[in-house]
Amino acid sequence: MLNFIEGGVCAAQGFRAAGVHAGVKTHAAWKKDVALIVSDADCAAAAVFTKNVVKAAPVLVDKAHLSDGKARAVIANSGNANACAPEGEANAERMCAAAAKAIGCAPEDILVSSTGVIGQRLNVEAIEACVPELYAALERSATASDAAAHAIMTTDTVKKEAAVETTVGGKTVRLGGIAKGSGMIHPNMGTMLCFLTTDCAISSEMIQTALLETAKMSFNRISVDGDTSTNDTCCVLANGLAGNAAITAKGPDYDAFLEALQALCVQLAREMASDGEGARHLITCTVRGAKSEESAETIAKSIISSTLTKAAVFGADANWGRVLCAMGYSGEAFDPDKVDVHFASAAGDIQVCAQGRGLDFDEDLAKKILTEHDIGINVSMQEGSDTCTCWGCDITYDYIKINGDYRT
Amino acid sequence: MLNFIEGGVCAAQGFRAAGVHAGVKTHAAWKKDVALIVSDADCAAAAVFTKNVVKAAPVLVDKAHLSDGKARAVIANSGNANACAPEGEANAERMCAAAAKAIGCAPEDILVSSTGVIGQRLNVEAIEACVPELYAALERSATASDAAAHAIMTTDTVKKEAAVETTVGGKTVRLGGIAKGSGMIHPNMGTMLCFLTTDCAISSEMIQTALLETAKMSFNRISVDGDTSTNDTCCVLANGLAGNAAITAKGPDYDAFLEALQALCVQLAREMASDGEGARHLITCTVRGAKSEESAETIAKSIISSTLTKAAVFGADANWGRVLCAMGYSGEAFDPDKVDVHFASAAGDIQVCAQGRGLDFDEDLAKKILTEHDIGINVSMQEGSDTCTCWGCDITYDYIKINGDYRT
Repeated sequence: MLNFIEGGVCAAQGFRAAGVHAGVKTHAAWKKDVALIVSDADCAAAAVFTKNVVKAAPVLVDKAHLSDGKARAVIANSGNANACAPEGEANAERMCAAAAKAIGCAPEDILVSSTGVIGQRLNVEAIEACVPELYAALERSATASDAAAHAIMTTDTVKKEAAVETTVGGKTVRLGGIAKGSGMIHPNMGTMLCFLTTDCAISSEMIQTALLETAKMSFNRISVDGDTSTNDTCCVLANGLAGNAAITAKGPDYDAFLEALQALCVQLAREMASDGEGARHLITCTVRGAKSEESAETIAKSIISSTLTKAAVFGADANWGRVLCAMGYSGEAFDPDKVDVHFASAAGDIQVCAQGRGLDFDEDLAKKILTEHDIGINVSMQEGSDTCTCWGCDITYDYIKINGDYRT
Repeated sequence: MLNFIEGGVCAAQGFRAAGVHAGVKTHAAWKKDVALIVSDADCAAAAVFTKNVVKAAPVLVDKAHLSDGKARAVIANSGNANACAPEGEANAERMCAAAAKAIGCAPEDILVSSTGVIGQRLNVEAIEACVPELYAALERSATASDAAAHAIMTTDTVKKEAAVETTVGGKTVRLGGIAKGSGMIHPNMGTMLCFLTTDCAISSEMIQTALLETAKMSFNRISVDGDTSTNDTCCVLANGLAGNAAITAKGPDYDAFLEALQALCVQLAREMASDGEGARHLITCTVRGAKSEESAETIAKSIISSTLTKAAVFGADANWGRVLCAMGYSGEAFDPDKVDVHFASAAGDIQVCAQGRGLDFDEDLAKKILTEHDIGINVSMQEGSDTCTCWGCDITYDYIKINGDYRT
């Protein structure tokens, strides 16, 4: 029995969090910009990172720190990506060292993440100076998770936070997470930043396997703007305090854990797509009847990534020709004359294309459907029996505004 | 000696053109929407088309009509793409039949193109009704080329038209063309619509070879929005009236012709990128020192296609981190620590990144450089000695406005 619960990254036993203002950028003092998440016990840990050839310094440091599959804590800042930046790796290591000193563990047990502008030196001194305050603020509470979730936000307009509870081997197991998204979101592995915690007992190998299986069907199925960031990181810490028999192989316990992890990550991924920079609509695109899941995914991703389709959703214009066009240049082979397209939302469901040809549809109803926040684009291909869902958002004046002058 | 000349699609001997208003869409009567280009003599003809799996009806018809490598004329309309439309191929054939009847040739000698909204039935009756007027308006003049160039425009704000003169085998040879671009521009073969004429004597095989060689280094190196259209078509008619010894194999004559064709198509491609929907800037991205031309092209295309880089150019923000980020997710392997980046324009040249790290640069000068219409992004990789240039444009509020409500 899987339930969504409160508490975010502090929902699982033994996890405390905090978020404070350090002044990494010239932020207003109310903007929290450094987050810390600490487990009371050692954790099996796993992470997935950006596949961008240009990798931020903290990504490189995390890979080294995760070589033993263990971690105790995560420290993260917003306001500067520490990518292509002078002294990048040295400054990422300094963040780890400062956190390790306060916690009383080895620097190699700390994971570090940064998000913000690329190419400028990180103000690591400000972060080091705030660590004592950050450590003192640690709590296991919904408020503390909220503070950490806010501290990693950049152009995000709402925090991304979720938690679930399930049963593994007869024990109650909790998983929680915080994430940030907004722009430069087209994850190819993990996503911008996502920190997950669980009290499930699970080996490093199996948590890595579960995270890979989950990332590919959640974060890797969203896109805001087609730009794969240099900093994408999704990590999970599992401290075992739930008391279940440790998961060390595939089986019913692993399946229960995986189901919960996937539900959690799909929720966070949807929140990220929904709060894409400037977005007014969440687009959920489901492709059915594809010849394989991979084919369905390629096509669904091509649709949610199409600038023209995104602009049509912004304009509440049922311009389904752009959906077919995006399918056609996806790289997948298919018969256009077997494609049906529906638009759907809380306001209704309307078929706009049958067998690859336009239908005379009710434009007023279509407009009403597309005016809702959550829009479905449902494609049926009659090529096979596989399905995939991807999530994206519309492109708006505000996206241009935000990104026309992001650095200043 | 290669010179740009006046006359567009009528620059070459024996080509006449016209453009009139037929009322394909509910256009204002001043909007010309049907164009005709006719050669006085039979032509060797070649074309390249979209690689989109979803192909417009005229693309399918043209492929059949070009099976003999010959053509006499092109008829084209704006206002409706005749893609995913009821009676698509039948209506494309009706356009050919109407033109053939007026000209007095076989319908198979006519090429047909359409551009505009996808998925709606083409008002072919309006086109048939206007053919007598269209035929009567045919002229060999700059004015006639201008009328045809305007007739194929959709959201284009300026016509795209160019012509060149060169010497082939001791004879003066002219090549001219008109094109339309604007949105849904990310050509993968030809481009939206481009009609080229030449009086060069050249075989069907060699003109096809020259067109392929040219398309891949001109139209296939531009992007407005990453959306590859269903209608991309670039065709060339060669009527041989220049009197040169016919080009039937590679050699100096072929090279002279190819050089002229490439100069013509690069010019039209630049005009297309420069007039991308809503664009305020032409972006010319040159990648040098790559390990191969293909690698340089992939990276340059990734940069000009990056929504975030396009938004930064719109905001005159020297956010070079987005350039590195786009290089990194291009799919090409390279060492980021060897990359230099410059921004350049008529206002100056500024290096912003050296060896993959940010430089302290003069932000005022950078802003001044990026405020010009024509912006250069110059990347040096130190991986090899190959170079490629691609062309794109910025993304603006107007792009969103135009595409949020294109159909109505």
